[in-house]
Amino acid sequence: MKAAVEKGVAVGAHLSLPDLQGFGRRPMQVSPDEVYDLVVYQVGAVDAFARAAGGRLSHVKAHGALYNMAAKDRALAGAIAAAVRDVDSSLILFALSGSELVAAARAAGVTPAAEVFADRSYQDDGSLTPRGQPGAMIEDVEQSVEQVRSMVFEGVVRAQSGKAVPVRADTLCIHGDQAGALAFAQRIRAALVGAGAQVRAIRA
Amino acid sequence: MKAAVEKGVAVGAHLSLPDLQGFGRRPMQVSPDEVYDLVVYQVGAVDAFARAAGGRLSHVKAHGALYNMAAKDRALAGAIAAAVRDVDSSLILFALSGSELVAAARAAGVTPAAEVFADRSYQDDGSLTPRGQPGAMIEDVEQSVEQVRSMVFEGVVRAQSGKAVPVRADTLCIHGDQAGALAFAQRIRAALVGAGAQVRAIRA
Amino acid sequence: MKAAVEKGVAVGAHLSLPDLQGFGRRPMQVSPDEVYDLVVYQVGAVDAFARAAGGRLSHVKAHGALYNMAAKDRALAGAIAAAVRDVDSSLILFALSGSELVAAARAAGVTPAAEVFADRSYQDDGSLTPRGQPGAMIEDVEQSVEQVRSMVFEGVVRAQSGKAVPVRADTLCIHGDQAGALAFAQRIRAALVGAGAQVRAIRA
Amino acid sequence: MKAAVEKGVAVGAHLSLPDLQGFGRRPMQVSPDEVYDLVVYQVGAVDAFARAAGGRLSHVKAHGALYNMAAKDRALAGAIAAAVRDVDSSLILFALSGSELVAAARAAGVTPAAEVFADRSYQDDGSLTPRGQPGAMIEDVEQSVEQVRSMVFEGVVRAQSGKAVPVRADTLCIHGDQAGALAFAQRIRAALVGAGAQVRAIRA
Repeated sequence: MKAAVEKGVAVGAHLSLPDLQGFGRRPMQVSPDEVYDLVVYQVGAVDAFARAAGGRLSHVKAHGALYNMAAKDRALAGAIAAAVRDVDSSLILFALSGSELVAAARAAGVTPAAEVFADRSYQDDGSLTPRGQPGAMIEDVEQSVEQVRSMVFEGVVRAQSGKAVPVRADTLCIHGDQAGALAFAQRIRAALVGAGAQVRAIRA
Repeated sequence: MKAAVEKGVAVGAHLSLPDLQGFGRRPMQVSPDEVYDLVVYQVGAVDAFARAAGGRLSHVKAHGALYNMAAKDRALAGAIAAAVRDVDSSLILFALSGSELVAAARAAGVTPAAEVFADRSYQDDGSLTPRGQPGAMIEDVEQSVEQVRSMVFEGVVRAQSGKAVPVRADTLCIHGDQAGALAFAQRIRAALVGAGAQVRAIRA
Repeated sequence: MKAAVEKGVAVGAHLSLPDLQGFGRRPMQVSPDEVYDLVVYQVGAVDAFARAAGGRLSHVKAHGALYNMAAKDRALAGAIAAAVRDVDSSLILFALSGSELVAAARAAGVTPAAEVFADRSYQDDGSLTPRGQPGAMIEDVEQSVEQVRSMVFEGVVRAQSGKAVPVRADTLCIHGDQAGALAFAQRIRAALVGAGAQVRAIRA
Repeated sequence: MKAAVEKGVAVGAHLSLPDLQGFGRRPMQVSPDEVYDLVVYQVGAVDAFARAAGGRLSHVKAHGALYNMAAKDRALAGAIAAAVRDVDSSLILFALSGSELVAAARAAGVTPAAEVFADRSYQDDGSLTPRGQPGAMIEDVEQSVEQVRSMVFEGVVRAQSGKAVPVRADTLCIHGDQAGALAFAQRIRAALVGAGAQVRAIRA
């Protein structure tokens, strides 16, 4: 954490369902109260590490199944937004572009950052193609660069069906556990900068 | 938490070793770095619940085996004090009267509160009689009241051997999971108030 | 375990989803392979305790959310039945009367025991009223006795709607964590014996 | 597991203290009753996977801190041996050559397999040099081969001090998580076979 803080990396808390074995990727039926508590708990823990390292927490993002559940479930989205507001209302809440969570953040007075994905394909309703379905992960770097370019500069992503889906791109996700993640990131960054974009930390 | 905050209860974080099955009562061989991390983690999580409820964290106390280990092990005591300082140096750190942890708190610039126990017997070196040994818990309320009176007003506790051990009593522990804990607390409070003491929250 | 074995209690393994915080009562999206593994794991562990105590495992029953999921989901039911068969095909598999799990047990060559509930109300499709809905738990002992009598002697339960639902009652569940569970059990046993039934362990 | 069983690999249960974060490598103060229970539990679980795959459990070995604790602590060694005996007295119990656990196995009527280590250095009392101390792991393959040759054919290991310590080598441990483990294993096997030894599974 200290190294990250010293390099000016924006530190975020990446919140998971309580499912260690499943790495938080299996949907669970949790109540809004349970979600509120797990957000408070996990944001507090990561915030403390950031403070102990001389930094501060910048943003919050739900992980895996919780991210996808909160994109569509208004009550869960509201619980996440309320928890973030109650712990520290200056935190930025990452949320899938166009999702219930973007709306819930605004309703709670928390600043959302609309997120788009460089390495995941989309469905017609703007949701991510679920892992396990064909083509969920984009493994071709040129396809990824083109998707990012379209999302950032044109505000549009092509769903698997070919449909044009409007998106807003405040922040861009590249999965660090994907093979070739570093090459993807370098190539995408170069493409964005080459086209005139600035790449910077969410709070810079 | 909200009810506690509204009643003005001083909220503390009670830190445990990562031993759910053993309720944190089994000593583990942990490094100072591991202890530093678990203090940051747990203090941060409880702090967030206090803040979300409109309050703030007041103090920190190690639980069970960690409490006893930190009383005697200078390196672990130093790790706890450093973690508390790095997360929030205004937190009060509870520590067994006369222990290494009191010294470590002072050295780190953290305010210690010297703690005495109403319902545990003492050894000649000022440590608590380990649970599982005869007479570790004081189950007679009058014996408890007398021990508290002596600790608070005379600064002395009688060890099991009869030896007089000097103590400082900034804060008094009564175990809530002991049978008759409520009656103990009421009787002890009445005795202290009757003798002219004020009973108040640590930050009041 | 030793005391239970000596008294001739039939020992069963009560299998749960990996959700300690939720006590296994929250549905999770788990794959048949994941369920197969958790059944093998938990049956093996309980079986070893039974053997170490000089007894043997008699039966297996899924708990909470897993029980209800396996009642309706053919793939999960098949995974449970296959795991029981592969570990010890002489084990009896408890399953909600009329459920997919009864059918899956038969298909796998495992003996099912059709289970009915003394203290839970039913829906028209033979499923249990979900906890959290009004009237899910039967708290009146006479109502419970009447439901049991009807299920055991007439093979019928009245759903909340009043509809008569056919059931088969090989084994009867009374929740031990319900208030008054002991009185319920005594009253129900007396009623069954009074009406001419024999109450005995599943393997007696 | 199925692949291992089909290839005739002898399947063992590798028992750990309940310390997921520390990978079972941190000593904990556990009672003999607690150790008895964790052995029954873990042996039962692994046994069930072996049976479900059409094989059977062959042997049992304690892991990490538990292995080293049981080598020196007679009560813990006795608890492990009793648990193995009570679950399945035909299981072979791996134990550090010369340790309390070898003696406890014999006393309990369980067959011990005296174990030596190819990639760990030894102390004068026959214990392993603790991880974290210099030279605990042997990283040079020729040094490892020479240590194995001496242990297997001469019944002696050179401690770090140079002292000759008698050992018995029923089974040989090579850590699979060490860098170059495969090369070590191939080189050691070739050296043993070249010198006339037979390498075979513990039950072959």
